[in-house]
Amino acid sequence: MPTPVGIVGFRGYSGAELALILERHPQVEPVLLEHRDAEVRPQPIGHPGPLRQKFSAESVRDAGLAVVFLATPPEVSMELTPPLLAAGTKVIDLSGAFRLGTVENYRRWYKEPHQQPELLAEAVYGLPEFYRSQIPGARLVSNPGCYPTAANLAIRPLVESGVVVREAGMICDAKSGVSGSGRKPSLKTSFCEVADNFSVYSVFNHRHVPEVLRTSGLHEGELSFTAQLLPIDRGILETIYFRTRGVGSADDLLEIYQKTYANEPFVRLYPAGQAPDLRAVTRTNFCDIGVYFDASDGRAVVVCVIDNLVKGAAGQAVQNMNLLLGFPETTGLLQRTA
Amino acid sequence: MPTPVGIVGFRGYSGAELALILERHPQVEPVLLEHRDAEVRPQPIGHPGPLRQKFSAESVRDAGLAVVFLATPPEVSMELTPPLLAAGTKVIDLSGAFRLGTVENYRRWYKEPHQQPELLAEAVYGLPEFYRSQIPGARLVSNPGCYPTAANLAIRPLVESGVVVREAGMICDAKSGVSGSGRKPSLKTSFCEVADNFSVYSVFNHRHVPEVLRTSGLHEGELSFTAQLLPIDRGILETIYFRTRGVGSADDLLEIYQKTYANEPFVRLYPAGQAPDLRAVTRTNFCDIGVYFDASDGRAVVVCVIDNLVKGAAGQAVQNMNLLLGFPETTGLLQRTA
Amino acid sequence: MPTPVGIVGFRGYSGAELALILERHPQVEPVLLEHRDAEVRPQPIGHPGPLRQKFSAESVRDAGLAVVFLATPPEVSMELTPPLLAAGTKVIDLSGAFRLGTVENYRRWYKEPHQQPELLAEAVYGLPEFYRSQIPGARLVSNPGCYPTAANLAIRPLVESGVVVREAGMICDAKSGVSGSGRKPSLKTSFCEVADNFSVYSVFNHRHVPEVLRTSGLHEGELSFTAQLLPIDRGILETIYFRTRGVGSADDLLEIYQKTYANEPFVRLYPAGQAPDLRAVTRTNFCDIGVYFDASDGRAVVVCVIDNLVKGAAGQAVQNMNLLLGFPETTGLLQRTA
Amino acid sequence: MPTPVGIVGFRGYSGAELALILERHPQVEPVLLEHRDAEVRPQPIGHPGPLRQKFSAESVRDAGLAVVFLATPPEVSMELTPPLLAAGTKVIDLSGAFRLGTVENYRRWYKEPHQQPELLAEAVYGLPEFYRSQIPGARLVSNPGCYPTAANLAIRPLVESGVVVREAGMICDAKSGVSGSGRKPSLKTSFCEVADNFSVYSVFNHRHVPEVLRTSGLHEGELSFTAQLLPIDRGILETIYFRTRGVGSADDLLEIYQKTYANEPFVRLYPAGQAPDLRAVTRTNFCDIGVYFDASDGRAVVVCVIDNLVKGAAGQAVQNMNLLLGFPETTGLLQRTA
Repeated sequence: MPTPVGIVGFRGYSGAELALILERHPQVEPVLLEHRDAEVRPQPIGHPGPLRQKFSAESVRDAGLAVVFLATPPEVSMELTPPLLAAGTKVIDLSGAFRLGTVENYRRWYKEPHQQPELLAEAVYGLPEFYRSQIPGARLVSNPGCYPTAANLAIRPLVESGVVVREAGMICDAKSGVSGSGRKPSLKTSFCEVADNFSVYSVFNHRHVPEVLRTSGLHEGELSFTAQLLPIDRGILETIYFRTRGVGSADDLLEIYQKTYANEPFVRLYPAGQAPDLRAVTRTNFCDIGVYFDASDGRAVVVCVIDNLVKGAAGQAVQNMNLLLGFPETTGLLQRTA
Repeated sequence: MPTPVGIVGFRGYSGAELALILERHPQVEPVLLEHRDAEVRPQPIGHPGPLRQKFSAESVRDAGLAVVFLATPPEVSMELTPPLLAAGTKVIDLSGAFRLGTVENYRRWYKEPHQQPELLAEAVYGLPEFYRSQIPGARLVSNPGCYPTAANLAIRPLVESGVVVREAGMICDAKSGVSGSGRKPSLKTSFCEVADNFSVYSVFNHRHVPEVLRTSGLHEGELSFTAQLLPIDRGILETIYFRTRGVGSADDLLEIYQKTYANEPFVRLYPAGQAPDLRAVTRTNFCDIGVYFDASDGRAVVVCVIDNLVKGAAGQAVQNMNLLLGFPETTGLLQRTA
Repeated sequence: MPTPVGIVGFRGYSGAELALILERHPQVEPVLLEHRDAEVRPQPIGHPGPLRQKFSAESVRDAGLAVVFLATPPEVSMELTPPLLAAGTKVIDLSGAFRLGTVENYRRWYKEPHQQPELLAEAVYGLPEFYRSQIPGARLVSNPGCYPTAANLAIRPLVESGVVVREAGMICDAKSGVSGSGRKPSLKTSFCEVADNFSVYSVFNHRHVPEVLRTSGLHEGELSFTAQLLPIDRGILETIYFRTRGVGSADDLLEIYQKTYANEPFVRLYPAGQAPDLRAVTRTNFCDIGVYFDASDGRAVVVCVIDNLVKGAAGQAVQNMNLLLGFPETTGLLQRTA
Repeated sequence: MPTPVGIVGFRGYSGAELALILERHPQVEPVLLEHRDAEVRPQPIGHPGPLRQKFSAESVRDAGLAVVFLATPPEVSMELTPPLLAAGTKVIDLSGAFRLGTVENYRRWYKEPHQQPELLAEAVYGLPEFYRSQIPGARLVSNPGCYPTAANLAIRPLVESGVVVREAGMICDAKSGVSGSGRKPSLKTSFCEVADNFSVYSVFNHRHVPEVLRTSGLHEGELSFTAQLLPIDRGILETIYFRTRGVGSADDLLEIYQKTYANEPFVRLYPAGQAPDLRAVTRTNFCDIGVYFDASDGRAVVVCVIDNLVKGAAGQAVQNMNLLLGFPETTGLLQRTA
């Protein structure tokens, strides 16, 4: 019998993607938890979709939900997490509420005091490739941001291996599809503003920077991160520039990745001098990485792509759920999602 | 010395297009009239754009504005028109406020009582190809809707000539870019909802239907009109289906158009069996028409394209302004707009 | 043990979609049959994808392929089908080679003599909703065209039920994404020609018209079909106009569809006055239908959407394969494809 | 009387843009020179467009063409330039044939021997902001590449001013619309390959790199340049990263640009911490620049945008023509182009 799991915020893009993945997951049954109202698309007759019920701590307990996903803004996640944990369910939060480790860090980047300092300290950062062992025992998993997922998967093995000339800095020039900005209508995400356009929207000061610093091993000032808006629905491509020491070829860099990711089901590497495009990973939970190297002076470029709604949100959340509930980690994640 | 003219609603898509056209119009100087606040895009240093001033009837009079364009919602147009006329300026209204001729018609399609019945009766419908003679003497020009501009230019010559089998009905299958829905953010015009999509949004009941009926000569029930949303910024293409009597070839139909539009600077025709695509007219004030005919049974298809923001809104408004102010009708309208 | 099945033309868009579906089909194992060379996208290391082998009748026989899909141009399909059948495999052809029933029909619409008249006569038209019983016993299944799949599913129940005023004609205004034109580079499908554009490309004379006539029950002259190119990757929406007799409401029309499709897993209906958009079916094998009705005079509009690469090509081909091989008809087809 | 000027390659995207600009240029009359055949779009009746004639050195001389634009591949430009110069016309070449200064450089980056070494040495590099004085007297102007135009305008003032820490390297992460790849159909520029996608296509080895090195003042190894393909028609945005010395604020950097470009009509600057998006310059001859600065450690980011077909090709070519023929430099270039 499938395990029931809940989704709050199922009308947003990450939440809707979660529902699609979980509907086809063989071991769980999703329940959509109505927390606020929102428009609904026309539905075909006789295809009601997943179960729905009003959200409350009691209804969650009564339904025996093993896990509840919060695809909600940080302030809502901070409000809903304590009663859910008290009701005995585990929480996977897709917002930034519990990602930054300290209240100081949160206040600096989110410009608000944190409402749940103890939970912030308790939360496990749900990037399985680096924190897998901590996830099964967690009550609260903080699902990583989309940009940091790609950046950390690309950068951390390099920093750990010591090949990066850190004093020269690493540049992460990041481009994302529009769904990363959420479903709430705004001029910035209106079709006529985005179509036929490309824009820089955050230089030096994106909220995702501290997530990269926490996990990649880089220190502040060593990372220059720019967020840019692609006129497409979904997908992130990050072009990462750095100078190397002790590296003779692109294959040396590839070897670092191959060692780190030898047993990782969702990280794929490309032959030296080839890079994935966005389409390589769209609607999948894969993170694909390609490497370029200029042997004359040791400059390197790494290209890293993910789907911001899958490996960058809902897919990774299901990966974390699989770990929490003891299912094989790839369950439900080897097919296209949406 | 250029004539000053005002624009209310210059941040909306039609209003912004108006500002672009008028900035390069050799005979006028646009003044942007601040009526409500809205976000502003970053501007380059030292390129301030057109003059701006707060909107009020007095400021309009003091500035000596010969014409004020209202690129505002119908209720705002109904509110602003009387004081403007009282201040001695002429008004070109781009909303639906004054298009439908009677208060009954307005109430039926706009679901509200009309606030200015006398002005509704007085307003001249600003489709120069058919009402040119009435425009120079008008105080209030009601600029046509985007869909009706294309539909009336395509349909009226056919109906007038008697070749349409009206009892079989005319079908106008219309497709529009997203800018036709205005700049106000909404889920329906959000990038992630529109991109990679195509949708029907109004069948039988679009507000533009009565405008087509008033001008084309068709009666209710003879026109089936469907509005559909293209995943592009701008442009309208209408595919029009009907059965003919007394027609032997596509050239017979073309001849009807050629007679009607022989001296029209903004209507262009294509050789029989060829049709314009949207790009043929994008960012221009042209309306392009192509004709297909099946000689075996007299079925015909007409394809008609305009740019909804130009011939369907701002360009036609400038065409009307040229007529109102006695300038050559094509002034400022033979270049790309945006 | 999975049944091996082959794909010729796996680099084209329909063929690639087939490969994606079949890779996740639990009962078969796809083999890519190399027939001609073409560019290949970069592939991640260690993810080789499906098996590949050179195409030949012998290799097909040696590999014990139960079915071979031909995602090839009609002339190639006509050439490859006889040796495949001789080798004892069944063939599902996705081209137009075997769809039109008679050599006269083929010559008229494809402008070439047919090379395999006997196979043309033998081929079963693979639209399961109407020809299900003939498929399991067939050697050669002719997979329907994309436009006709949607058109026939929408039109045939109406014509059969007698509610269509046929002498007034039915209009099928069809819009398709670019993948329907195939993967071979051409100016017409170049990004810069298609983006921000919309165009009519076939009026009265599209090759898919005779497929609709054969199956829908309409006679020539009763159907006006226009093909138009949407600036999107995939998806077909058809807006169908007709006059009714003996119909009182949209629900009367819905009831006709509900009777016809009560047990069909891939046809979904919408409440009266609602229509699916393209996204409702993208990357699925569903055909979604919505109905509008004007009770004042009996005019009706039906909106029908499919994904041209799935229900309009590869998905329907797998549906036919399931029938040919005795698997449950929906096997492998209830997930997103690509 | 307007001066006649010729265009070879008017069907390509740069050539077509040239024709559009020159048609509205008040001082010249364009003549389209037929050199090779290509498809033509349907044209409206009675709107023939510019004059056309067969290309030959004699026809050019007979027509009294003051300037001929070559919007052709490098090998065609090398072939056509000598007879044109011999015929007494001036040549503005939009290809890469004459941009790299030396035959060694050309051979290294274009993988072919140069056919016209003397003309290569003679050609003036047509970036008016830096080489204005050399242009009026030139016989052969080599119009800059699209990427280098943006890169040189953004980088050279910084390098000249000495604020760049050159040993840390400059990164130019460049993104371009598809029209930069030309009009010839190819899989890489097919709609279904580009739409919903984003890809890196040239790392370290793009042919435009030596043009940036020649003009910016950077040495090889100091510039890391990556070319990437945006799913849009036109526009280039370059995000440029570097470390500074002796800079206290973004305004210090802006001041460098303001001094350099004080009298430049086509370079616009933004207030510190703001950047233009692509739309700011689409269909214009402007180059817009914005500056970001991190005062804590002197890292800087510059964002530079142009329209690849205008300031990056046809517009700049007309700017060069204006200089060659003694017209005011902005003639015909202060309106939208296409």
